[in-house]
Amino acid sequence: MLHRFISVLDRKYNFERAKAHCDIPCGIYDPITAQIAAVTVVRMIDLMTDLEGKGGEKGKDYLNSMSRYITVKEDHAEKAKAEIRVIWGDYIKAPHLEKYPDLHGLVHQIMQLGSKSRQTTDRQVALDFVEAINKFTEIFWATKNVATKRAKSPYNPPLELVYPVL
Amino acid sequence: MLHRFISVLDRKYNFERAKAHCDIPCGIYDPITAQIAAVTVVRMIDLMTDLEGKGGEKGKDYLNSMSRYITVKEDHAEKAKAEIRVIWGDYIKAPHLEKYPDLHGLVHQIMQLGSKSRQTTDRQVALDFVEAINKFTEIFWATKNVATKRAKSPYNPPLELVYPVL
Amino acid sequence: MLHRFISVLDRKYNFERAKAHCDIPCGIYDPITAQIAAVTVVRMIDLMTDLEGKGGEKGKDYLNSMSRYITVKEDHAEKAKAEIRVIWGDYIKAPHLEKYPDLHGLVHQIMQLGSKSRQTTDRQVALDFVEAINKFTEIFWATKNVATKRAKSPYNPPLELVYPVL
Amino acid sequence: MLHRFISVLDRKYNFERAKAHCDIPCGIYDPITAQIAAVTVVRMIDLMTDLEGKGGEKGKDYLNSMSRYITVKEDHAEKAKAEIRVIWGDYIKAPHLEKYPDLHGLVHQIMQLGSKSRQTTDRQVALDFVEAINKFTEIFWATKNVATKRAKSPYNPPLELVYPVL
Amino acid sequence: MLHRFISVLDRKYNFERAKAHCDIPCGIYDPITAQIAAVTVVRMIDLMTDLEGKGGEKGKDYLNSMSRYITVKEDHAEKAKAEIRVIWGDYIKAPHLEKYPDLHGLVHQIMQLGSKSRQTTDRQVALDFVEAINKFTEIFWATKNVATKRAKSPYNPPLELVYPVL
Amino acid sequence: MLHRFISVLDRKYNFERAKAHCDIPCGIYDPITAQIAAVTVVRMIDLMTDLEGKGGEKGKDYLNSMSRYITVKEDHAEKAKAEIRVIWGDYIKAPHLEKYPDLHGLVHQIMQLGSKSRQTTDRQVALDFVEAINKFTEIFWATKNVATKRAKSPYNPPLELVYPVL
Repeated sequence: MLHRFISVLDRKYNFERAKAHCDIPCGIYDPITAQIAAVTVVRMIDLMTDLEGKGGEKGKDYLNSMSRYITVKEDHAEKAKAEIRVIWGDYIKAPHLEKYPDLHGLVHQIMQLGSKSRQTTDRQVALDFVEAINKFTEIFWATKNVATKRAKSPYNPPLELVYPVL
Repeated sequence: MLHRFISVLDRKYNFERAKAHCDIPCGIYDPITAQIAAVTVVRMIDLMTDLEGKGGEKGKDYLNSMSRYITVKEDHAEKAKAEIRVIWGDYIKAPHLEKYPDLHGLVHQIMQLGSKSRQTTDRQVALDFVEAINKFTEIFWATKNVATKRAKSPYNPPLELVYPVL
Repeated sequence: MLHRFISVLDRKYNFERAKAHCDIPCGIYDPITAQIAAVTVVRMIDLMTDLEGKGGEKGKDYLNSMSRYITVKEDHAEKAKAEIRVIWGDYIKAPHLEKYPDLHGLVHQIMQLGSKSRQTTDRQVALDFVEAINKFTEIFWATKNVATKRAKSPYNPPLELVYPVL
Repeated sequence: MLHRFISVLDRKYNFERAKAHCDIPCGIYDPITAQIAAVTVVRMIDLMTDLEGKGGEKGKDYLNSMSRYITVKEDHAEKAKAEIRVIWGDYIKAPHLEKYPDLHGLVHQIMQLGSKSRQTTDRQVALDFVEAINKFTEIFWATKNVATKRAKSPYNPPLELVYPVL
Repeated sequence: MLHRFISVLDRKYNFERAKAHCDIPCGIYDPITAQIAAVTVVRMIDLMTDLEGKGGEKGKDYLNSMSRYITVKEDHAEKAKAEIRVIWGDYIKAPHLEKYPDLHGLVHQIMQLGSKSRQTTDRQVALDFVEAINKFTEIFWATKNVATKRAKSPYNPPLELVYPVL
Repeated sequence: MLHRFISVLDRKYNFERAKAHCDIPCGIYDPITAQIAAVTVVRMIDLMTDLEGKGGEKGKDYLNSMSRYITVKEDHAEKAKAEIRVIWGDYIKAPHLEKYPDLHGLVHQIMQLGSKSRQTTDRQVALDFVEAINKFTEIFWATKNVATKRAKSPYNPPLELVYPVL
């Protein structure tokens, strides 16, 4: 019955024939914001690991720094998730889904990896988060017929990110 | 290759075997917040239609009211979308998706109806938004083995909402 | 003189004769959002107590989890307070206050319990916070002539909440 | 029964004997932020009235300005309300209420005037809002044994505000 | 005297010798977010001009769209300003200022152009805003020894943006 | 070339001849909000130092309090910075800069001291932050031909703040 409900809606609003546009609609989307945020998550985990590794007294300065890293990690993991959700919710339409049938699943995994990045300080989780967003970025630019390449980002850590060829 | 990437992640983090939990994890989710927000969208459209229907001078008081209705409509459509996205991203796991294979599609449609509710003043779009969230609510409570019923909400307009039987 | 100031305002704007409405006015209020937020405060205290009780190393993962519980506790205590304040400030009018002369005091106590829930990790404070909001909820629905019942919430911990009978 | 509930809480947490403090507790409160915000509400109404009075074409530039005035009016009315609510909820304790038994009522009126300032473009409502906050400011500084004076604010419009004598 | 105050601070904290870093410090800055936001401002002005140009009835749907364009314009102009201010405040240090003595002035002009973009619907102002941010972007990447190029952005309108060569 | 770019803009928009106004333009600015926020930063550092000095068990209650102090410190340092940036970006114009050529530098130092106040728990940094904002406040009121005085603030700690003579 659920399936039927969706089909009826599809017919009603012609979602599947609609041209891609944002909810204004304005058409300005770019996954780079999510990519930068995800790299920041990795960076925060590195800073947390470094600070813990230094040993020494765990007084108010230690807590001040650790708290700030955790908060920035939280905020940027959530920001990365939010950016992807907006592109998925506002830009991705039925024709994209026909061509990329795993796209819903990929976005769902990005949500889960983002949440997991908040719950842990495991660097590999955050790296997988970056990479899942890279995959999304490749698909996004492909839907716009813009070629992409991979390059080291000019940040620390210099992870490989997907960029449009402009 | 994308498919393989997802499968690898599934194995790695055992998402499919994980018990449902939020990203804290805390386990407190309730679609009622999204439902209330979606009803508010319908209400704002009603107020906009009433105000326009009154005719008369369209001076600063008219703009003051209309602007406020539009802003509340925007905010509540977005809030409803956000609440559903959080439940979907943090709570919904692989076993739910096996049982409800259209769930990704339903959530995606909720996003689209929410955006469409912002773009227009078409009451039917907002009613469909409420109903799509009702469908999601039914599924959500079913995953928790909580029975649901439909009842008129104690708000204006008194639309039919899905409630858990407690 | 203060008293006189209030009386003059009452006459001027007929607050006491005004029908209840929100500041749009839209009429859609529901204390359930505050109730869910207050239960979340209890839940966070439980998670903090559990984590501390586990003993073991108090490294970066411990701080990561504890920080997140504290932040969620802060946010939800404040959210619960905000929801009650909005209903009180925008919906509660003079006739309600005549019928429930302790209402101002109850709302003020909710504010204090909410703040105290942020300052401590004392579970009983948070339980009192939930219960004070339950009291408010009973009064709120009574002003709308909607009967209420008490039932275990479908969350963890399954505290008794006041629900409208729909 | 409600009354009894409050009394029990009072005994339990000794609210009435507690020294005034904020919810950190930090002790830094100042109604000046609310006063500035309320003056801004008057200013926005003046700008709206001026713009409408200019007549001429009501095209996109007119809407651009009017929308911005309305949004700033909304935000500052809400900000003024929020600042007062925080002081009331976190700082005001039982001994203050014994000395100023109308304080709950004054705060409630500030909420109502703030909401009314959002709903209308009536300058007098906004002036009453400023004045009600002035009254609150007088009481606030009196609880701290700081004398107050009235002076024209150095803003436009130069309304009379209550200031502590420092 | 002011000058002396600054010099004393410089000596005290060795700002001028400090290596560039953010306030965490994390080192991940990228003006692209500001650039995208500034292009969005131009886009909103285009949509406002198009909508007005269509003529026809200026009912609730017209206001709904116009209000949304104005809000998005406001938000993105402010977002672009905020991003530049963060880089300027947290990353730019004395050695950068010695090399680029006009940098303070450029940032100040970006603030003014951003505010002007909010106040008007003049496309040229928004184009100058984009270009001023391009200038800032060139300097930013030069401080990091990353070469830049100019290319049409893959958005609508396809304005020329400054990109790092990666 | 950059210099020329700025000169052209100056001519184009007559920034240097423009009368001071905010971006609405509304003209209501007051550095007091930044001053209060900066004093709060000092207060939080005092509370952190006191709590650490108490010794005793560093369990969940200790972390709960310390986390809250850190968050409030973060928020208020950022708020103080934001308030100054708004006045600088929206109110300060070319004639002010001619009269106070170090103003850009002072604002930039305020940004740096604010960030440093977040990074450390060093009371002196926060005191310098308060004092730098005091300097800005003196200049601000001087541009409006309002005399200023210095007085102990009625907060804890009672630091010396710059106030307009009204």
